[in-house]
Amino acid sequence: MHTEQQLIQRIARSLPCAPGAERVPIGLGDDAAAIALSRGANIVVSCDAFIEGTHFLADGPADSAGYKALVRAASDLAAMGARPEFFLLSLALPNAHTGRWLSGFLHGMGRAARQLKMSVIGGDTTRGRIIAVNVTVLGEAAFGDLVTRSGARPGDGIYVSGRLGGAKLALELIRRGLGNRRRFGRILRPYLYPTIRGQLGEWLGQNHVASAMMDISDGISTDLARLCLASGVGARVWGESIPCVEISPRIAAQMPGLRLNPLKMALHGGDDYELLFTIPPERKDKLRDSPEFSELTQVGEITPGQDVLISDGDGNFRSLKARGWDPFRKG
Amino acid sequence: MHTEQQLIQRIARSLPCAPGAERVPIGLGDDAAAIALSRGANIVVSCDAFIEGTHFLADGPADSAGYKALVRAASDLAAMGARPEFFLLSLALPNAHTGRWLSGFLHGMGRAARQLKMSVIGGDTTRGRIIAVNVTVLGEAAFGDLVTRSGARPGDGIYVSGRLGGAKLALELIRRGLGNRRRFGRILRPYLYPTIRGQLGEWLGQNHVASAMMDISDGISTDLARLCLASGVGARVWGESIPCVEISPRIAAQMPGLRLNPLKMALHGGDDYELLFTIPPERKDKLRDSPEFSELTQVGEITPGQDVLISDGDGNFRSLKARGWDPFRKG
Repeated sequence: MHTEQQLIQRIARSLPCAPGAERVPIGLGDDAAAIALSRGANIVVSCDAFIEGTHFLADGPADSAGYKALVRAASDLAAMGARPEFFLLSLALPNAHTGRWLSGFLHGMGRAARQLKMSVIGGDTTRGRIIAVNVTVLGEAAFGDLVTRSGARPGDGIYVSGRLGGAKLALELIRRGLGNRRRFGRILRPYLYPTIRGQLGEWLGQNHVASAMMDISDGISTDLARLCLASGVGARVWGESIPCVEISPRIAAQMPGLRLNPLKMALHGGDDYELLFTIPPERKDKLRDSPEFSELTQVGEITPGQDVLISDGDGNFRSLKARGWDPFRKG
Repeated sequence: MHTEQQLIQRIARSLPCAPGAERVPIGLGDDAAAIALSRGANIVVSCDAFIEGTHFLADGPADSAGYKALVRAASDLAAMGARPEFFLLSLALPNAHTGRWLSGFLHGMGRAARQLKMSVIGGDTTRGRIIAVNVTVLGEAAFGDLVTRSGARPGDGIYVSGRLGGAKLALELIRRGLGNRRRFGRILRPYLYPTIRGQLGEWLGQNHVASAMMDISDGISTDLARLCLASGVGARVWGESIPCVEISPRIAAQMPGLRLNPLKMALHGGDDYELLFTIPPERKDKLRDSPEFSELTQVGEITPGQDVLISDGDGNFRSLKARGWDPFRKG
């Protein structure tokens, strides 16, 4: 058994990595890579695999697969403070999925592309025994405006956008066969048609407000640990301040016998694509001018050391285990 | 049933395409796309899917899979006259392939990367029911030095590098269970560890010698038809001048009962990664200064109209059907 992190380390050890900060200011290990081109131009690039059986089900809504494949890749650029402009679509398909399924997929992806104002510029199409999608996204950005994972410092506040756990709740509904019910549309949306925080990410980068940033794609317990590792810091998370998904009594009644714990969903549920970022104390006031300010919540602070802790309601801190989504972990 | 070309057309119709030649001088439909960045810089980018069961076998040599996945993606940039510098590796793997198989794969890919002087700058790693690889390659190039598929004009000579059909011959050996025999190593190499014509491609671009260019990844019968379609021209191919793979009596004896036709292998066999390019008559003399000149062969000429014809030994021309590799065609 391997974790995704271990695999990435093996790849980094086995392959020639970027030739130096002059040419590749941001390489392996962040949400996206930045290449410094001639004459001071910079391109930011990232790719995201989206695989049948791992990220989506072949018998699920095809337009959701297309929508989400693009949005989640674009989120990696937003999480650097860069605007995603272009994408390449690599698509392996069984013959049985080249008809209606593909039409739905392209319909969903086209909708996402128009919303994000992105254009397809290339790709590859081939046959495969399962559906395997890869989306590569690119955007131009000034290097100085990019926000990496590694800039958090002790004393910085930790913030998240939106509410966490919504995609996980939707997934639980879908797993229980409630995914097709029209009346749950609003609740299913965060999983099927997630939105990303592009405007907020760009603002935080261009105004040099955030010291570190990433998107919460695998659950904050896992992603905050990654940010802390990259920055060489620890964190204290205020458990009671985490903005959790709201579970109405009507929804809870649909899943009797299941203990739905909003905090656990918020901490460990993946697929939220909200932003996780840190702000130095002296820049905290600037945050009021940000887009979507009312949807931002401080959930803790960066500490020296390397422990990532979370408080319970009584003010006691315990270790926050990284229990977010890892494709290589079972269960 | 769909051909790959039809799928690409559906994608182009369904998704917002590049916003215009000013920002994306080369978009969908060529070997790679070019983005014009600020201050006159250009980036060239392409991606290539490499899927278990379609492009390689999971029980074949893992280091060949890694080597080839990178080389064939890099070939798309060489075929534009651009130098591939960076790549992103997207890798979906079954748990059973995260150990020894992955080590072999990375070993092969690392070897290719060092040979090509390329660096990995990012990627994605996830689980999948089959092995699904996508490699995105990037390089910087002056837009004026890039050679597209669409610049061929009537009267231009048609050239290829190297010999064609070698990968197809190797594949036939492998299919007959002769793929592991040490004494066939040299013959298997074009399929397992193909080389690309990076130096030649760059020279043809930088010296503005070629009017159109692409790599022969799916067989010249299919790829020349694509080049002609993109350029709005036809072609006459001199069948007797095609540089075909040589099949020694020793090899032929290994495959009794099989009629090995070197010309058919050269015309329709895929995976060769040689360059196919056109040269206007007035630039023909410049070609003598090219690297690997002795390995270049003129195989025909571009004509008005849209017919792609091939001559037999008696000087009669018949239609050259595109019978190269199409992942969506059976057989």
